[in-house]
Amino acid sequence: METLGVAMIGYKFMGKVHSRAYRDAIVLFEPKTSPELRVICGRDESGVRDAADRYGWPEYSTNWEEVVRRDDIQIVDISVPGDIHRPIALAAAQQGKHILCEKPLANSLSDAQEMAQAVEAAGVVNMVSFNYRRVPAVVLARELIEAGEIGEIYHWRACWLSDWATSPYIPITWRFQRERAGSGSLGDLGSHLIDLAHYLIGPIEKAIGLTETFIKERPLLPTECKPGVTTGSVNVDDGALFLARFENGAIGSFEATRVAGGSRERFIFEINGSRGSVYFDFERLNELRYFSWREHARTQGYRTIFVGQSEHPYGRRWWPPGLGIGYDASFVHTVYDFLNGVAENKSPSPDFREAVGVQAVLEAVGHSIEEERWVKVSDVLNGTQ
Amino acid sequence: METLGVAMIGYKFMGKVHSRAYRDAIVLFEPKTSPELRVICGRDESGVRDAADRYGWPEYSTNWEEVVRRDDIQIVDISVPGDIHRPIALAAAQQGKHILCEKPLANSLSDAQEMAQAVEAAGVVNMVSFNYRRVPAVVLARELIEAGEIGEIYHWRACWLSDWATSPYIPITWRFQRERAGSGSLGDLGSHLIDLAHYLIGPIEKAIGLTETFIKERPLLPTECKPGVTTGSVNVDDGALFLARFENGAIGSFEATRVAGGSRERFIFEINGSRGSVYFDFERLNELRYFSWREHARTQGYRTIFVGQSEHPYGRRWWPPGLGIGYDASFVHTVYDFLNGVAENKSPSPDFREAVGVQAVLEAVGHSIEEERWVKVSDVLNGTQ
Amino acid sequence: METLGVAMIGYKFMGKVHSRAYRDAIVLFEPKTSPELRVICGRDESGVRDAADRYGWPEYSTNWEEVVRRDDIQIVDISVPGDIHRPIALAAAQQGKHILCEKPLANSLSDAQEMAQAVEAAGVVNMVSFNYRRVPAVVLARELIEAGEIGEIYHWRACWLSDWATSPYIPITWRFQRERAGSGSLGDLGSHLIDLAHYLIGPIEKAIGLTETFIKERPLLPTECKPGVTTGSVNVDDGALFLARFENGAIGSFEATRVAGGSRERFIFEINGSRGSVYFDFERLNELRYFSWREHARTQGYRTIFVGQSEHPYGRRWWPPGLGIGYDASFVHTVYDFLNGVAENKSPSPDFREAVGVQAVLEAVGHSIEEERWVKVSDVLNGTQ
Amino acid sequence: METLGVAMIGYKFMGKVHSRAYRDAIVLFEPKTSPELRVICGRDESGVRDAADRYGWPEYSTNWEEVVRRDDIQIVDISVPGDIHRPIALAAAQQGKHILCEKPLANSLSDAQEMAQAVEAAGVVNMVSFNYRRVPAVVLARELIEAGEIGEIYHWRACWLSDWATSPYIPITWRFQRERAGSGSLGDLGSHLIDLAHYLIGPIEKAIGLTETFIKERPLLPTECKPGVTTGSVNVDDGALFLARFENGAIGSFEATRVAGGSRERFIFEINGSRGSVYFDFERLNELRYFSWREHARTQGYRTIFVGQSEHPYGRRWWPPGLGIGYDASFVHTVYDFLNGVAENKSPSPDFREAVGVQAVLEAVGHSIEEERWVKVSDVLNGTQ
Repeated sequence: METLGVAMIGYKFMGKVHSRAYRDAIVLFEPKTSPELRVICGRDESGVRDAADRYGWPEYSTNWEEVVRRDDIQIVDISVPGDIHRPIALAAAQQGKHILCEKPLANSLSDAQEMAQAVEAAGVVNMVSFNYRRVPAVVLARELIEAGEIGEIYHWRACWLSDWATSPYIPITWRFQRERAGSGSLGDLGSHLIDLAHYLIGPIEKAIGLTETFIKERPLLPTECKPGVTTGSVNVDDGALFLARFENGAIGSFEATRVAGGSRERFIFEINGSRGSVYFDFERLNELRYFSWREHARTQGYRTIFVGQSEHPYGRRWWPPGLGIGYDASFVHTVYDFLNGVAENKSPSPDFREAVGVQAVLEAVGHSIEEERWVKVSDVLNGTQ
Repeated sequence: METLGVAMIGYKFMGKVHSRAYRDAIVLFEPKTSPELRVICGRDESGVRDAADRYGWPEYSTNWEEVVRRDDIQIVDISVPGDIHRPIALAAAQQGKHILCEKPLANSLSDAQEMAQAVEAAGVVNMVSFNYRRVPAVVLARELIEAGEIGEIYHWRACWLSDWATSPYIPITWRFQRERAGSGSLGDLGSHLIDLAHYLIGPIEKAIGLTETFIKERPLLPTECKPGVTTGSVNVDDGALFLARFENGAIGSFEATRVAGGSRERFIFEINGSRGSVYFDFERLNELRYFSWREHARTQGYRTIFVGQSEHPYGRRWWPPGLGIGYDASFVHTVYDFLNGVAENKSPSPDFREAVGVQAVLEAVGHSIEEERWVKVSDVLNGTQ
Repeated sequence: METLGVAMIGYKFMGKVHSRAYRDAIVLFEPKTSPELRVICGRDESGVRDAADRYGWPEYSTNWEEVVRRDDIQIVDISVPGDIHRPIALAAAQQGKHILCEKPLANSLSDAQEMAQAVEAAGVVNMVSFNYRRVPAVVLARELIEAGEIGEIYHWRACWLSDWATSPYIPITWRFQRERAGSGSLGDLGSHLIDLAHYLIGPIEKAIGLTETFIKERPLLPTECKPGVTTGSVNVDDGALFLARFENGAIGSFEATRVAGGSRERFIFEINGSRGSVYFDFERLNELRYFSWREHARTQGYRTIFVGQSEHPYGRRWWPPGLGIGYDASFVHTVYDFLNGVAENKSPSPDFREAVGVQAVLEAVGHSIEEERWVKVSDVLNGTQ
Repeated sequence: METLGVAMIGYKFMGKVHSRAYRDAIVLFEPKTSPELRVICGRDESGVRDAADRYGWPEYSTNWEEVVRRDDIQIVDISVPGDIHRPIALAAAQQGKHILCEKPLANSLSDAQEMAQAVEAAGVVNMVSFNYRRVPAVVLARELIEAGEIGEIYHWRACWLSDWATSPYIPITWRFQRERAGSGSLGDLGSHLIDLAHYLIGPIEKAIGLTETFIKERPLLPTECKPGVTTGSVNVDDGALFLARFENGAIGSFEATRVAGGSRERFIFEINGSRGSVYFDFERLNELRYFSWREHARTQGYRTIFVGQSEHPYGRRWWPPGLGIGYDASFVHTVYDFLNGVAENKSPSPDFREAVGVQAVLEAVGHSIEEERWVKVSDVLNGTQ
């Protein structure tokens, strides 16, 4: 089995989660290729050195340009913020490195398209870390759909309810600034929901949205205050809603918010079809609720499946049945599938091109809000919008 | 205490539920006026005679015009289908009778407006039986909002998920015909959600919707089949979605569907505000979930309140704490509040005028779907739409 | 169809609930015999007159001895406290009246046995109102067991958790006095659980229990205070636990308590067998949870059945699917089945003899606590214990 | 910070989980002492070599006697089956090594006592891996109890419901043989519940139990079949129940079973006290349900706390709020606390002596079943039982 050198670009939260995921992919799973964690990169030397130490990287660097050129590196994992993905991805692709990139692929559609073109031109394996796709209960939902157990899809309803921004005393960080974050809850949380809708239902034809910034003024960070100026304006949304029609005829609703008190990270979807339904709530990530019309009317009812049997996706590799997994498992599965993709020279889903599709929906929703009308995703992709 | 004669117009499902509600209002509650059930009306003599017998009415009639003119009748309860509410209500108002009318008030906005004008001109007490407003857990939600416990309202999300129409073998009854039903799930189920949104949040400024008829062809009823013609087209929606902006700045989503397998009559709403949240699911009608930001972070969490204490709305009149009530209780509360309204000569909410407001939102949504754009409710009410 | 005159003995809480249940049995169901509510009895004249008025009884009386002798009375409903059931039941049986008696049948085993002998000797239809047996979800559990869907029964676990007595400021009423109440939570709440265990699993072979009085001293009622004496001792249990072995080999646990904060009247049972499991929680009385081993491992899971379809017990008579019923429905079903039993001259289950069985288990548990050892129910019934 | 060499004895399931826990304790937490993973031990050379490779141990050995004598080893982690703990622990203690031992400490009380004496005599830090104590929601329950939020404890009810042994086709492995496993569900699952009861409530005074083997005959493993002999007898329990009185006056029930269909590993406890209640279900390990009597009656209710805030036990080290953790986290916390205990030269709870207490309760329950009477734990510890 080939040994592949891995470089991790980014060492903060996502750098930690991804580092750990590579180790777990080795300890718990048996990827068809054997990764060797070689070097971790970051701008702040003392920070990245400490991270290397703790996460178990033998080497660190403050120069990603150099790292992506190294011959002993075959895999580049981009775990830095979205607004600096582009140059790294382009350089890595040019060097023929396989790339696993955190979401969002980019902050704009055109950047994303350029990146997709680059990896396709270079012929490297590429994948975007929309990790929630790889929660086993979500994969089980997909398997049921593919097996026809849900039938023709009628309804999709999805929310990402979080509440961390409800207090007006939470200061203005980059997440409240359009210049740096692109958008608010719509892009941050909504993008995951769009990716899942693509995964479970299929392409979206058109959308119309509505957003609101409920807390329009927030305190500045102490470092950004000036004499007499201690608050600033928020120019991204706190909450976003949109309706969508899918190409296959299903209709759906999406919601993303940071001010839904009581829901820490409750991302929920429910799908209804002609033969059954599924329901998922990330706060209970080991469970999938499933309803089948095949059951006799007397005993019909949504059942709660504890997804952790060996019959379930990724189930054989974790604990005995009934002992749950956490958030981090979704990254382990992402890395595992990515490594197998590299072994087979085939980009796992979602690849960069699919992430472009997510970006296009986000832009369609953005236009629909500004122009107060339905916007077709194809018009956005074709540049006619 | 004055005795008031009651005439029930309609003897089928709603006639039965309302008849029972008057009795329970007497047995369990102590309305400030004493109703005397005098006569029940219906078109089919043998049907209405049997109903009189079973529900305990001393008299029956097949002529509502006569009944609403009787001097020993002070209250007219209209429990027939919506498309024949108008003439009965107009006649009853003209005779100075107090009116409790089933929902929808009418099948069109103009009819509803005419009826509201009539009862206002006649000065009679009038009320529309949007019964779900009077589920105790829903009233508790309103009380919490009024007490400021939810704070400024940010989000409203409501669904009415039912599944009785999922099978394509269900034949075309009046509920699948626009001519008779007005609309599909939107009007039937969505109207309740709109009324609740008005009750809990306030007026809706504008809306945009999306509907779909998933099962476009259904079998005809045997009596409507002709040689070679055994199926017909459905021209109402199976499912409907709409987004709304409220006048107070909140944003919301609504959904109504008849094809959400696994949800028999799961009507759900969730409200998030600056100080707390509430969540209600009609399949667990004795419960209200409530989240308060006032609690210490360590023990914050949605709590499940079993609404049946003497401290709760209508709680003192029912069973000891913890012993639940059913669907029917909402009608008992409606009748009880209506009788008290009659005693005080004050129309309880929602009166006919408020029902006109529900109708206006339904029409706004209808226009928004046809024209694929946002429609303002005020434009509908002013006739400029 | 024969008309049968009903006399209600008792007019307070249970008198109200039973009165209403007879009406609903007529309005909603169609019993095979037609009851006529003739007279309601109570000791306090003004109280019983008012009750007659409100509950719709044409006549009242303060003399039950007279009433049970009346020729126009065929049914005697005993809804007074348990310690005065015996004389009424014996007199009614002697007069050949059919009897529906509230639980507990009596406060002692010997009284209960005497009453059972009396009704059997008189050949009258007799039934005890263990109403929880007739919650539709509970009946569905029994149907699944009878159909073999649960298989051989292994485990029974049942709790009746209530919390009304948790505050030490709750004064000493009859419920805290062994002389009047017989026992505490064990007899009051535990008796229902024993009846359900008999209904669902079968006879209990032996038991061993443990009780505790956590709040040993409580305030006296103002009327019972004397100079310097404002508190009294509680001599019944606040909480009770017992283990049981059933005759069919199953093993089980029972718990009843009044001090389980947060559970208003949460009575729960769960049954596990070789082929499936069922779970019921009275706070969600319209639901039954059901697990079947027949399902493929990938989609196995407890399902939540909303018990309200026409396919469900008593389902055809209530509301459309998905609209729940309340606590009171269990009494309507009890009365309905009792009336049908009278029509067929066959005592519905549980009859007085079965209630003797419940009493015997209670006494066995009582002995087991005093003597700190396992006690066989047969020894109690045979008088050898 | 001192570097401490770790030897892992055992390389199968628990060896894997513990190996990973040491790494995570370093990556995610910052223990006060720095462990260095030096050597992993096992009997099967190829197996342990492969494990060393995958779990990241630089060295492996098939000779634990040698390993525990090494000077570069300060910590011995015993992750082999319970029946071989004793010699390893005694040898390690004699060598002055700190010991983290998997549960059960031993299969008999006398072995456990000998081991506790050995570590105490040697003065080494010692701990038993009752990992469920360190689920954050469980720790939060303890914190609430310690802060007085639950008040005086009245009730403890705990179940460990699993279902893996329900099929009669599951063959006889060591878990079904008293000689090797000690007991069935009682020792395997019940021991965790006893440890938690000690942690949350306090010492148990006396107990009485009941067990059953529902499936008395099972197929032999192919390797153990002889001509004509293909099945064998099961001599351990499938399910076990016991009642307990705690020294502080609380009463409790315990259940452990392997045949509760629908519950994979649903371990549940509920505690009721004078001021509040808590409820935990391991299938939803990130949640604690909490009820407080301090809340106004109108809004009282069990709340569901998502335990993952920085205010929660171990919360600061994992993911942002709302992103759950899994089964494995409980081991990371165990190792983390153990390493800190080593740094401070203080055995974290539960140490070997506390594990002796668990063993004593198990033996008391065992005696109570054989002799059909209550057994005092102190009599077992004093050897008078």
